[in-house]
Amino acid sequence: MNRIAVLGAGSWGTTFAKVLGDGAAASSEPTEIVLWARRDEVAQEINERHTNSAYLGDIALPETITATEDLTAAVTGAEVLVLALPAQSLREHLVRVKDAVSDGVVVVSLIKGLERGTDLRMSEVIAQELGLPAEQIAVVSGPNLAMEIAQGEPTASVVACTDQAVAERIAALCSASYFRPYTNTDVVGVEIAGIVKNVIALAVGICDGRSLGDNSKASVITRGLAETTRLASALGARLETFSGLAGLGDLVATCASPLSRNRSAGRLLGEGLTPEQVAAKLTQTAEGMKSAGAVLELARAHQVEMPICEAVVAVLDGTLATENIASLLLARDLKSEDLQAEGK
Amino acid sequence: MNRIAVLGAGSWGTTFAKVLGDGAAASSEPTEIVLWARRDEVAQEINERHTNSAYLGDIALPETITATEDLTAAVTGAEVLVLALPAQSLREHLVRVKDAVSDGVVVVSLIKGLERGTDLRMSEVIAQELGLPAEQIAVVSGPNLAMEIAQGEPTASVVACTDQAVAERIAALCSASYFRPYTNTDVVGVEIAGIVKNVIALAVGICDGRSLGDNSKASVITRGLAETTRLASALGARLETFSGLAGLGDLVATCASPLSRNRSAGRLLGEGLTPEQVAAKLTQTAEGMKSAGAVLELARAHQVEMPICEAVVAVLDGTLATENIASLLLARDLKSEDLQAEGK
Repeated sequence: MNRIAVLGAGSWGTTFAKVLGDGAAASSEPTEIVLWARRDEVAQEINERHTNSAYLGDIALPETITATEDLTAAVTGAEVLVLALPAQSLREHLVRVKDAVSDGVVVVSLIKGLERGTDLRMSEVIAQELGLPAEQIAVVSGPNLAMEIAQGEPTASVVACTDQAVAERIAALCSASYFRPYTNTDVVGVEIAGIVKNVIALAVGICDGRSLGDNSKASVITRGLAETTRLASALGARLETFSGLAGLGDLVATCASPLSRNRSAGRLLGEGLTPEQVAAKLTQTAEGMKSAGAVLELARAHQVEMPICEAVVAVLDGTLATENIASLLLARDLKSEDLQAEGK
Repeated sequence: MNRIAVLGAGSWGTTFAKVLGDGAAASSEPTEIVLWARRDEVAQEINERHTNSAYLGDIALPETITATEDLTAAVTGAEVLVLALPAQSLREHLVRVKDAVSDGVVVVSLIKGLERGTDLRMSEVIAQELGLPAEQIAVVSGPNLAMEIAQGEPTASVVACTDQAVAERIAALCSASYFRPYTNTDVVGVEIAGIVKNVIALAVGICDGRSLGDNSKASVITRGLAETTRLASALGARLETFSGLAGLGDLVATCASPLSRNRSAGRLLGEGLTPEQVAAKLTQTAEGMKSAGAVLELARAHQVEMPICEAVVAVLDGTLATENIASLLLARDLKSEDLQAEGK
């Protein structure tokens, strides 16, 4: 019997548990899926009614998923531990579960963010707190708007682990008729793509809020992916990751979708709300608002220019008015296209 | 006095003439802009009311633009000849103007298509018919939805010519406060990006018509750019062009916009209309419908796999029902991501 624990019963954690449950139902191996919810009423609703109405409406979850609010109980005995927690509270949760984690566990991060203060990626925080080697840590990322997947819309994703065999094992566990995971060994690239994407989505949202058109937003997306690739390349990632599903795919899905939290947060910023007002208005964290500063710190530490992230951070800090962001965003990109065109 | 002729008074030709006119107004060099319209009533409206209401509503054109329905008169004496004609009728127009074209003219193609039958790019048709060397032919492409530019929304674009100095000269002529052209010497890459984009936009439109979500469409865009890049690379283009404004930028703008003709045509196909019904319903050509077959021929001639273009051609030929395109589109992309992930 496989035992998989999913920590975090927000929209993506619950949806991923559903993917695992549907995948298990289609396979011959018996699999137990435990979903940890911070709030007891959410756990109860999942156990009794097989729904998580706060995040996924009346979508039915597989009855094989059990939920608990007991963090240690969820983790104990799990061979695979999936993390769908807010980036900024990952470390405190890991401290709490540390002693209950099984030897040989594979930890799978669904989290797209950098830890503030340390500027560490989630896989680095996991390695540090749980003392795990790279081959026991995987990440999942792709064009994966949770609500669409929960509704059974077909999509693909990327499972990355430095150990290809581990990536394949996790991919097999999360394969469902509507969810096709592909494997990759570029953990750094997949994580950076997911992290910076949220910041670029904020920038695109700001353009929406300022009523800019699709030409302008396409320029921001293009430049945004270019600056993400520059950062990732400085960190040792592979360029191809950024033209794939975890790079371009995820960025385009997020920036096209009205369902994206980060884009929605950006739109509200563009309409003139303060970051505090935006945070109060959203039911779930817009991770880009938390990670943007850390992304910029990382970029500066590696001497990488990221003008879009810089502009977003300045808006969040209150040092740049969104009226001025449009021309700034457009004006600076083009330098890099120019240099590229000249072959420099 | 510079004299620039623009052939074709559809939405992009008229908008580009407006960009040239606004650019000339801001510069010290006196410039004459002549716009050739196929229909006399369009030429008259532009001359008398300074509008082209069939394509651009009540947007005011610079009064320095004069229009004519006399093709030879438009071309005679022009140092720069801008072509905004349907791809499939380019050659017949070139035959008609050939004798009137000035020595030393620079021909600028705004056209995104391949000639059916010959599978030639527009710059190749121009070189052939007018007997011009590469340094007298430039192309312009980017995230350039005409209506947004006509409304003065800021955007950027790419001017490509194998001769950098010529690209810079054309870029200077079409620089306006809301339109920033950048230069590039990769004519093949810029042309292929623009051509295949229309076919990918048809595929995205078909997904719309079949009510697929943003995850699926993002996968199609990602795979679509990958197969475009493979073709272009086989033709000697530079990879960087595809992560820039003429590649990714144009593709994203087109696929995001409700204004795109090709995406609209795809949506109608996805809703069950035949290609003939779609063509009858649109006021302007959806170039992707005309070029898709030629793109696939070019790909086959160079042993490049283009599964999305192949699926679109099959839909246009009536050999593939759009009900079956979704799973086909999603199923095949992933092979390439997989190969990429494995470093093959």
